[in-house]
Amino acid sequence: MARNTQVSADHNAPPITRILAQFVASHPSRGWSDAVDHEAHRTFLNWLGCAVGAARHEAADAALAAVRMLEPSGQATVLGRKDRVDMASAALVNGITSHTFDFDDTHLKTIIHPAGPVASALLALAERQGSSGRQVIDSLVLGIDVACRVGNMMYPEHYDRGWHITGSTGMLGAAAACSRLLGLDAQKTAMALGIAASQPVGMREQFGTMTKPFHPGGAARAGLMSALLASHGYTASPKALEAPRGFAQTVSTKNDWTQITGELGERFEISFNSYKPFACGIVIHPSIDACVQLREQGVKPEQIERIELKVHSLVLELTGNKEPADGLQAKFSVYHGSAAGLTFGRAAEDEFSDEIVRRADMVALRRKVVATVDPAIDEASVDVTAVLTDGRRVHVFVEHAIGSLQKPMSDAQLEAKFHGLSDPILGAAASNGLIDACWLLGEAKDVRGLVKLAVPA
Amino acid sequence: MARNTQVSADHNAPPITRILAQFVASHPSRGWSDAVDHEAHRTFLNWLGCAVGAARHEAADAALAAVRMLEPSGQATVLGRKDRVDMASAALVNGITSHTFDFDDTHLKTIIHPAGPVASALLALAERQGSSGRQVIDSLVLGIDVACRVGNMMYPEHYDRGWHITGSTGMLGAAAACSRLLGLDAQKTAMALGIAASQPVGMREQFGTMTKPFHPGGAARAGLMSALLASHGYTASPKALEAPRGFAQTVSTKNDWTQITGELGERFEISFNSYKPFACGIVIHPSIDACVQLREQGVKPEQIERIELKVHSLVLELTGNKEPADGLQAKFSVYHGSAAGLTFGRAAEDEFSDEIVRRADMVALRRKVVATVDPAIDEASVDVTAVLTDGRRVHVFVEHAIGSLQKPMSDAQLEAKFHGLSDPILGAAASNGLIDACWLLGEAKDVRGLVKLAVPA
Repeated sequence: MARNTQVSADHNAPPITRILAQFVASHPSRGWSDAVDHEAHRTFLNWLGCAVGAARHEAADAALAAVRMLEPSGQATVLGRKDRVDMASAALVNGITSHTFDFDDTHLKTIIHPAGPVASALLALAERQGSSGRQVIDSLVLGIDVACRVGNMMYPEHYDRGWHITGSTGMLGAAAACSRLLGLDAQKTAMALGIAASQPVGMREQFGTMTKPFHPGGAARAGLMSALLASHGYTASPKALEAPRGFAQTVSTKNDWTQITGELGERFEISFNSYKPFACGIVIHPSIDACVQLREQGVKPEQIERIELKVHSLVLELTGNKEPADGLQAKFSVYHGSAAGLTFGRAAEDEFSDEIVRRADMVALRRKVVATVDPAIDEASVDVTAVLTDGRRVHVFVEHAIGSLQKPMSDAQLEAKFHGLSDPILGAAASNGLIDACWLLGEAKDVRGLVKLAVPA
Repeated sequence: MARNTQVSADHNAPPITRILAQFVASHPSRGWSDAVDHEAHRTFLNWLGCAVGAARHEAADAALAAVRMLEPSGQATVLGRKDRVDMASAALVNGITSHTFDFDDTHLKTIIHPAGPVASALLALAERQGSSGRQVIDSLVLGIDVACRVGNMMYPEHYDRGWHITGSTGMLGAAAACSRLLGLDAQKTAMALGIAASQPVGMREQFGTMTKPFHPGGAARAGLMSALLASHGYTASPKALEAPRGFAQTVSTKNDWTQITGELGERFEISFNSYKPFACGIVIHPSIDACVQLREQGVKPEQIERIELKVHSLVLELTGNKEPADGLQAKFSVYHGSAAGLTFGRAAEDEFSDEIVRRADMVALRRKVVATVDPAIDEASVDVTAVLTDGRRVHVFVEHAIGSLQKPMSDAQLEAKFHGLSDPILGAAASNGLIDACWLLGEAKDVRGLVKLAVPA
């Protein structure tokens, strides 16, 4: 029975479901700058490396085992594995692996990880369809634009309320991308967005469990299926996103509709995407960056008397674990991150392995790190001084860490990150081939060539 | 990055995820009264009739067409059709058809339609596993208990906020039921509930579109997959339901935890399940019931000068359409419902067909119905007077309509309803066999016998 107790509903929202659908269905192919197009390739490369890198993780094994109980067809590739499953299950599993290491892309305005849901849905469908690389890149840009604009509309209230915003906007991005790839008209694209709107995935309580990476995977699957349903005439409300009892007003108390409509088709949110150089929480990144710079200046671990960090308060609040017992705990330790940066010049997934974390030299070096909160230090910054055993002091100030929008990873750095993830799974030579294929994706006649390279020999 | 702006979080919730998991995993088989066990059979029968009845609806066609794009295996039956699909897709499609006519069961305390998500997931898995009927009935009672208790905890705020509560609690009921059927222990059942907790399905804005019945279907699928994932070691937060950024606090401002824990294992929510005798919104039911009674007293449509209804204000607010143009509009017309009750003595799906709605005698009779709001009349009641052309007045007062908890449909009436739905699809003889199989389900060694009867010859 209907009730009439809705609180503070906005009955005058603009028709954003139709507006986004029209945009996705009709925006011209490559209707953006070369910089945007290049960013799409960088996003794709980074996402693919993350998915391949986690292919053998126990979360991937468990998800695949569940999927196999459905006796799926072999339509699409599980990246980094020999398994083939139906395209919706491939979207699910690749979405899971791409987020398993918490190493994927970040739309910093909303902390959405947009490629997980969008690219995972898209590539599975594209492989099945034999789509061109250009279609994939176009769909990726548009799908990410939809997810991130919806995020901009609701952030931060929606996230603060408890939603894992990657999965609770990602199904819309995936639906948009797959609708574009299927060539749906604006009307059917609106239906796809509408069906997806009923399926937000994920709460933040799941952080630290396999269900966290399930969120982008589930969103990828939901978005893909929404597009397939719409393509066959399945209907939804054409006001599913904006209506008083539609998606946005149900899951968020903040709904700034202008974030959807402002500069639509002119400003592309993928421009604000960033890539993590380090496989841990972003507040540690300035400290790691500084310690990598110390190493580049010739400072060696055995010379260290003390490393003094002046940090923002959030760093100790979130990552103040001085004696991490294993790799997972080390991801929440600015002490370990700093020690790894100085010792290895990097802090990718390997540097957060249990083995490395427990090494005697790492334990010793971590104990030489002294972190203090300095109110003058910004969240994005760190002030580091290495005090050496000979009394010398080496100072590094990092205003913005590598990987931030102000100091993005270079293409070469992204390639190095890719190798770190992919080489253990595919080998260095095959990884090189895959990197090349990613950079040339926009020119590829058929994405299946690239996908084949992501299967281990 | 973590934030610290959560509003009014309850950090002292009882561990309801574990409590429910323990209950589902360990409650004894048939650990309830005969009345509860019989209600489970009634719920199953009613659900099955609804699913079979809508098997050829265009929503089923569209959903199946999308599922077929995955080239699914043939593990499980689409009820009322010859199609076979993988068990997760069968859960989806049967969940859709069971709710397509809005004719399924209603847990009146929460207006959840619990069988859609729970039974659809359960029967697909049971068919695949060759489970016994007793296992199915046990799992159905427990799964419905979980969904409805979660509903009790959050209703009405959660519903008022915009959630279609059937799909936003149903994934938990489905996960619980499938965990029980799989024989998962309490730990894995908690994981299944946790994975499902991240996947609520459905907003009320979708009412009137195919995405409304998608909600129980999507919830069925999500719950089944959550149980399969958990069975293979996939993890989730063991506090996924109750934590400050878990399911309940994210999707509802009301969380009465005692609704989960109170009389758990003693009071079974399936006892409060009800079944619609009429294929339309529940506020019209007293008026239809009254007009059916007029007919039983010998009043014929051609004798009618005027039918006077004294109704609750909600009746005209929600169903005040005097001149419905088609079947869908007629479901929101107390005038059509009353005319159908008097003319046919029933108001099932057929009586809301476009053809019937447009018939001249129905148009004429609807115009003779005069409905006025009477503040003395309760929502559950109606006061009806037929004024005949010879001047006679025939009066009927209905306090509680047939189908309410106070005046439930009899088993025979449920069978008649089943025939109305199933006969056009399976034929009367096969429908009789299916009805028998439903009543005997608790004794069946293997549910596949029953399922075979739901496939048209």
